[in-house]
Amino acid sequence: MDAQDKKQQFSSSDDVRSARPLRHVQTVTFDEPLVMELGGALPRTTVAYETYGRLNARRDNAVLVCHAISGDSHVAAHDADDETGWWDIAVGPGKTIDTDRYFVICPNILGGCRGTTGPSEISPATGRPYGADFPTVTVGDMVALQVRLIDHLGIDRLLATVGGSMGGHQVLWWGAKYPGRVKGLIPLATSPRLSSQALAFDIVGRNAILQDPNFHAGRYYEQDAVPGVGLAIARMIGHISYLSPQALDAKFDATRYQPRDVPVEFEKKFSIGSYLGYQGAKFVDRFDANSYIALSMAMDLFDLGSTREQLIDALKAGGTEWLVISYTSDWLFSPAESRRIVDALIATNNKPVSYCNVTSEAGHDAFLLEDSLPRYGALMAGFLAHLAGQWVAAAPDAEHSPTSIFHPDHPHRIDYERIVGLVEPSQSVMDLGCGTGALMQALHAHGCTEIVGVDIDQDAIVACVGKGLPVIHADLNEGLRLFGDGQFDVVLLSQTLQTVKEVEALVDDMLRVGRRCIVSFPNFAYHKLRRMLAEQGRAPETPGLLSHKWYDTPNIRVLTIADFENFCARKGIRVHRRVALDTEENWREIEDEPNLNADLAIFVISR
Amino acid sequence: MDAQDKKQQFSSSDDVRSARPLRHVQTVTFDEPLVMELGGALPRTTVAYETYGRLNARRDNAVLVCHAISGDSHVAAHDADDETGWWDIAVGPGKTIDTDRYFVICPNILGGCRGTTGPSEISPATGRPYGADFPTVTVGDMVALQVRLIDHLGIDRLLATVGGSMGGHQVLWWGAKYPGRVKGLIPLATSPRLSSQALAFDIVGRNAILQDPNFHAGRYYEQDAVPGVGLAIARMIGHISYLSPQALDAKFDATRYQPRDVPVEFEKKFSIGSYLGYQGAKFVDRFDANSYIALSMAMDLFDLGSTREQLIDALKAGGTEWLVISYTSDWLFSPAESRRIVDALIATNNKPVSYCNVTSEAGHDAFLLEDSLPRYGALMAGFLAHLAGQWVAAAPDAEHSPTSIFHPDHPHRIDYERIVGLVEPSQSVMDLGCGTGALMQALHAHGCTEIVGVDIDQDAIVACVGKGLPVIHADLNEGLRLFGDGQFDVVLLSQTLQTVKEVEALVDDMLRVGRRCIVSFPNFAYHKLRRMLAEQGRAPETPGLLSHKWYDTPNIRVLTIADFENFCARKGIRVHRRVALDTEENWREIEDEPNLNADLAIFVISR
Repeated sequence: MDAQDKKQQFSSSDDVRSARPLRHVQTVTFDEPLVMELGGALPRTTVAYETYGRLNARRDNAVLVCHAISGDSHVAAHDADDETGWWDIAVGPGKTIDTDRYFVICPNILGGCRGTTGPSEISPATGRPYGADFPTVTVGDMVALQVRLIDHLGIDRLLATVGGSMGGHQVLWWGAKYPGRVKGLIPLATSPRLSSQALAFDIVGRNAILQDPNFHAGRYYEQDAVPGVGLAIARMIGHISYLSPQALDAKFDATRYQPRDVPVEFEKKFSIGSYLGYQGAKFVDRFDANSYIALSMAMDLFDLGSTREQLIDALKAGGTEWLVISYTSDWLFSPAESRRIVDALIATNNKPVSYCNVTSEAGHDAFLLEDSLPRYGALMAGFLAHLAGQWVAAAPDAEHSPTSIFHPDHPHRIDYERIVGLVEPSQSVMDLGCGTGALMQALHAHGCTEIVGVDIDQDAIVACVGKGLPVIHADLNEGLRLFGDGQFDVVLLSQTLQTVKEVEALVDDMLRVGRRCIVSFPNFAYHKLRRMLAEQGRAPETPGLLSHKWYDTPNIRVLTIADFENFCARKGIRVHRRVALDTEENWREIEDEPNLNADLAIFVISR
Repeated sequence: MDAQDKKQQFSSSDDVRSARPLRHVQTVTFDEPLVMELGGALPRTTVAYETYGRLNARRDNAVLVCHAISGDSHVAAHDADDETGWWDIAVGPGKTIDTDRYFVICPNILGGCRGTTGPSEISPATGRPYGADFPTVTVGDMVALQVRLIDHLGIDRLLATVGGSMGGHQVLWWGAKYPGRVKGLIPLATSPRLSSQALAFDIVGRNAILQDPNFHAGRYYEQDAVPGVGLAIARMIGHISYLSPQALDAKFDATRYQPRDVPVEFEKKFSIGSYLGYQGAKFVDRFDANSYIALSMAMDLFDLGSTREQLIDALKAGGTEWLVISYTSDWLFSPAESRRIVDALIATNNKPVSYCNVTSEAGHDAFLLEDSLPRYGALMAGFLAHLAGQWVAAAPDAEHSPTSIFHPDHPHRIDYERIVGLVEPSQSVMDLGCGTGALMQALHAHGCTEIVGVDIDQDAIVACVGKGLPVIHADLNEGLRLFGDGQFDVVLLSQTLQTVKEVEALVDDMLRVGRRCIVSFPNFAYHKLRRMLAEQGRAPETPGLLSHKWYDTPNIRVLTIADFENFCARKGIRVHRRVALDTEENWREIEDEPNLNADLAIFVISR
């Protein structure tokens, strides 16, 4: 493999895989028939799988990795001499899925062609390969066979199931049907069901295979040739859809007219054509066309529902914790699909859910690639450590943004203490603009157990997940659509109101989602600020919360206590409590003319 | 054709076209050989074309419409009994391209299969169809033949050339090579060269045709069968790429499992599959595979450059006015590609350019569809009227946003008069945040001839184009990347600074692009505003410019004259002139303590 190959190989899940047999594969054969979800049964099934690390004495450190359509059991190399695995960057000693700590199991899926029972296997009934007689496989059937495998391995409950794309479909199925058998789930770059666009690409690929004159209705095993053109065409379509337009341009735009002279029959006028032709042909060497049809159809038939209600119903079993990850440039399994999953999981409301839409330019393949691994790897590692109980509630961050208008640092976030004091330990709480989770930690210390944060900053999400705090990645300006009516006892918006563009929509949404809301903000009518404008003729600027210039301050909303009270009155919002503080005067609570004498206000409001 | 067909037919350029011959087609045959750009020659060429409306006596009202890959000369129905045209929504009496006013010409392109010379035509040399012997066609060759056609029609100079997708490539070529033969150009949904992704889809489609066993190296005309499977596969890939994911979901998600039983051999498990199969098969009935290969290759070879410099060089001929239109959901020919065109055109800086990124959910096909026609149709109609000299500088709008902090309406925008007074008629001017063009009109009346506006609001863009004012659709928060260093004598930012999020970046960019910049803004340190905060403790709110609530005001930057002067000093910006006005006091110019006594400031600055 030359340098060019090496550079290009990591563009999809399995360009790294040769057709050679894998050295570390184990197999187990089940003689009890597997009754298939959509009819038919397989009298005997074999699972090819690989394991990494050691199962601990309590048998509770097992992580099941589910592969995507063209993957196999070889998720990582077992040693330095071993062939590269499809997720070597994430699985191994000291890596994200740390095989020094976790016992990793990766089985080839049902219907595949890399050791587990699939259409190319000999049917015990006929003595010939199943071919087109192989019963229709669903993601449910794949997972049912995975359950047999973990039974065989003596594992009662997995620590986690992890997978991207169709691997993510398997993860979702684990959550829907086997919540008692797994503690936490990490679906990556996946969807509750395929978009019409993704479905359409699959269909065109299958049409190319089915219409290939060498397909012979799936009975090509006995012929001289395989339906290689059709399978290669299908693979080419897949390849394009796995990458973002930016990633394709980055790889091929500069060398557009310098194709490589690869030994294939496909068009080689452009470099991207020679690449697609080469990859397509290479895929034919190692993959079975009937398996491709079976697996792509399983993906196309996977369907947890097209409506919110159906999806909630599908995922209502609960009992598992979730970390859902999407990638910004993934157009095949778009972030909106992951948000639908998160939406439904939040609505079932019985276990913590975290979500992050990770910035990547790589497209759908991002979950296999290194470029955004620092974020999604940290998220997975933090979540696994949390599941394994290795996380200990950290002390609140030393670093966080100032609370006071005037003082850049306080030993304590005294406003947090006041807010925490307004919450009962039994109440469920959502913290909007949660940052790295300091207020959530304070609530946790207060005894609150049902807490979720929301923030727009990805590093804040990583930090929260690293502390075992459930957190949702969302832009408050887009509202709280993910959350249901009255879903939380208390919704907090601490020192964030003045930074929001869509104030009215957010407040309306807070009041819809929270039975009570607690809002804190700096009071721009505080006497010292009034004087700054009145006497100096300058936009207020102080060392603390307002330590920004007029042209770059995040505080784009200038409001006063009187303005907020007027706003509440106009909108028919009930004010239950107002706490006005003068942070300049030792956080004294102000009763007399708060709009003049307080620099910080905390309101408890409801509809 | 049933209702379902009817509903679905408008999803792509030519689903409306049957294989029947067209009744109104005219032809002309040229016997002088056409020497092809990439080698070879066609001894004789025929052009099939249709015309609509009448050529006027001055022969200056002709509009050439260029079709996309699968279109033909039948752009619109000629009468009520005529077959539907591919752009009936835009071409006809009283429509966007008004055939009561313009003489519309639509030729089938070279290499096609709908009357104009192409691979299926008999070669005079051999007496057999050209087939694969047809020389490689380029967009340049297509346009060269179009030039022969307009010569034949006795038209010296077209009023405009219009086209989308590959039709847009032809329009760009007209601008690059024949600027003397056309007054204005409207490229829609196109690109300077294909993205790697779009190129890749074309390649896979061609591979499917080339590898079809019925292709016979392009000599299938003498066989019993055509390479129908390959061509249908190519068409299916095209179909998916022409629509947005949203549009596909809107059409097919609800009926996913209700396929229609169409009489085709392709997979019919899902509704979108039955649709793709049906459309693919239908395309084979009316389109020639060799033509598809030739035309898609012409599109793939079209290349005005991958760098800004190459593109500027390709378009430097100048001499034509431009209206460039892209569509927000077009992922095949993304808005970024159109912005590259606009960027280069602006850099050549010798004729007006307008640009709008029109909001649409339809995808690449948006330019053929009705949903966003109110915007792109109005843009085209306004631009054509301007080219035809039918536009007369309108009186300044009665309606525009207030100038004064306190008065909601002024008979004159006195700040405009002051700004105009600071500009010489000989100077080139860019107006940032130009709105519907009132200040540009005032500058025009002042004698300025080189003016361009920039605004984020699409309706403002439509309004400006309707007044014959060149205008670029852009978000000032993303900077002025489209414009070159020192490209304008004067850059204006009138009453907009306080609404911008990325103030510092924008001011830096203004000072890069303009030799002088004029900035006006409301002064928040004006004595009455100081008093509002100081005495009432409320965020300032007045009937005029500040007639917004704290929670929804677009004025997110609170600054004073002192703040701005300090900002300029800190950044080393030279202040040439400061005009401070008290709009409350009859627009009196303030010399004494302007930061206290003026409510409006105008600064002339430079680096």
